Amino acid sequence: MMILEHTAKAFDEDLHEIAMRVSEMGGLVERQLVDAVNALIHRDGALAAATVAKDADVDQLQREIEERSVLTIARRQPMAIDLRQIISAMRVATDLERIGDLAKNNAKRVNAIGEDDFHSLKLMRGLEHMSDLVQDQIKSVLDAYASKDVAGAMVVWKGDEEVDAICTSLFRELLTYMMEDPRNITFCIHLMFCAKNIERMGDHATNIAETVVYQVEGQTITEKRPKGDMTNFAGTT
Amino acid sequence: MMILEHTAKAFDEDLHEIAMRVSEMGGLVERQLVDAVNALIHRDGALAAATVAKDADVDQLQREIEERSVLTIARRQPMAIDLRQIISAMRVATDLERIGDLAKNNAKRVNAIGEDDFHSLKLMRGLEHMSDLVQDQIKSVLDAYASKDVAGAMVVWKGDEEVDAICTSLFRELLTYMMEDPRNITFCIHLMFCAKNIERMGDHATNIAETVVYQVEGQTITEKRPKGDMTNFAGTT
Repeated sequence: MMILEHTAKAFDEDLHEIAMRVSEMGGLVERQLVDAVNALIHRDGALAAATVAKDADVDQLQREIEERSVLTIARRQPMAIDLRQIISAMRVATDLERIGDLAKNNAKRVNAIGEDDFHSLKLMRGLEHMSDLVQDQIKSVLDAYASKDVAGAMVVWKGDEEVDAICTSLFRELLTYMMEDPRNITFCIHLMFCAKNIERMGDHATNIAETVVYQVEGQTITEKRPKGDMTNFAGTT
Repeated sequence: MMILEHTAKAFDEDLHEIAMRVSEMGGLVERQLVDAVNALIHRDGALAAATVAKDADVDQLQREIEERSVLTIARRQPMAIDLRQIISAMRVATDLERIGDLAKNNAKRVNAIGEDDFHSLKLMRGLEHMSDLVQDQIKSVLDAYASKDVAGAMVVWKGDEEVDAICTSLFRELLTYMMEDPRNITFCIHLMFCAKNIERMGDHATNIAETVVYQVEGQTITEKRPKGDMTNFAGTT
């Protein structure tokens, strides 16, 4: 009995350690997303470089979470719900790492887009709006994850439709600029890739929402997720 | 002693089961990549739809690999090299799942690009060439993974530079077409996203190469991977 209690306590401590790292990773990734968009809006090369550099910390945290999770499983042999908690932590870390990668890609475009545009303020506002929305999604889904809140996760899961809709309307606007003047093309393509990256971050937030449901209920969502219609242009996954 | 032997044998069987699924997943994903590009080249909507549909099988296999891996760790408590083998299988499955997603995204664009272009053959050949190269990379790295061949994995790891170079030159060509005639813009943007998707598949092949090194040598590659210069336009991660 003493041994069982000891194992349970050790397992809880391991789990707590892992959860702390997931939370730390979430904070870093949210920061990356915001910094990348600010760097784009203000053409801030130094902020962009710092955002790119920070991605190594995010990657490192993911590896740590993965390795600690696996070691915990090997040492404590958890079953059922406990096992799901660890699998969930690894899944969330994988999605956060991908969000970090996408933010890094956005930051990398700061130098490429340069200063050579004149109509960009409105477009940048569109990008910022998308980014704010996705940041909210990430924040909410990580809260839902931390508090095992299935209802909260489902709100995020359903909210992704709005992100898709904004992305599609931004794509249309960008397309108009490109048609109007070929000198806008390069700049607009970069912005399209940035918007698409942010839209993908939103997809990862919905993946995390699915993980919350899996963690709590032990099953995967089978309902088809509502997606904004993007097949005609932005062609989302 | 009998018990230890039994455990070792059961572990090997588990590992074999997992490896079989990784191999099956690799085959499906290679097929997805090829089919998506063929569907694009021949504007084959039925092939595109089948490619999109098959992605569910790939996702399902990833979940199975993940769950079996975790159960194996919990039951057999493997240590050191054995544990690395399981972590590696999960990592490879994650990368394969992403490649499948990217192929699905390419297939989804078939309906969107329609028939409304006249200069597309040369551009499509460029895409096909990239796709062939990346397919080779995926094939080679999965062989290296199956045979624990570090040297083979490093060839793939270094070969990604060529994929990036082709992607960059294709982007330049697409940009020229867009500048020449705004009616080409929509079509060319779809092709840019397709090319970028294939380039990202190549990145996942290099991730798998890194996993092969980790599996065999227990450490991560610290050398900086040579990347084709894409920051000026395609802005690769």
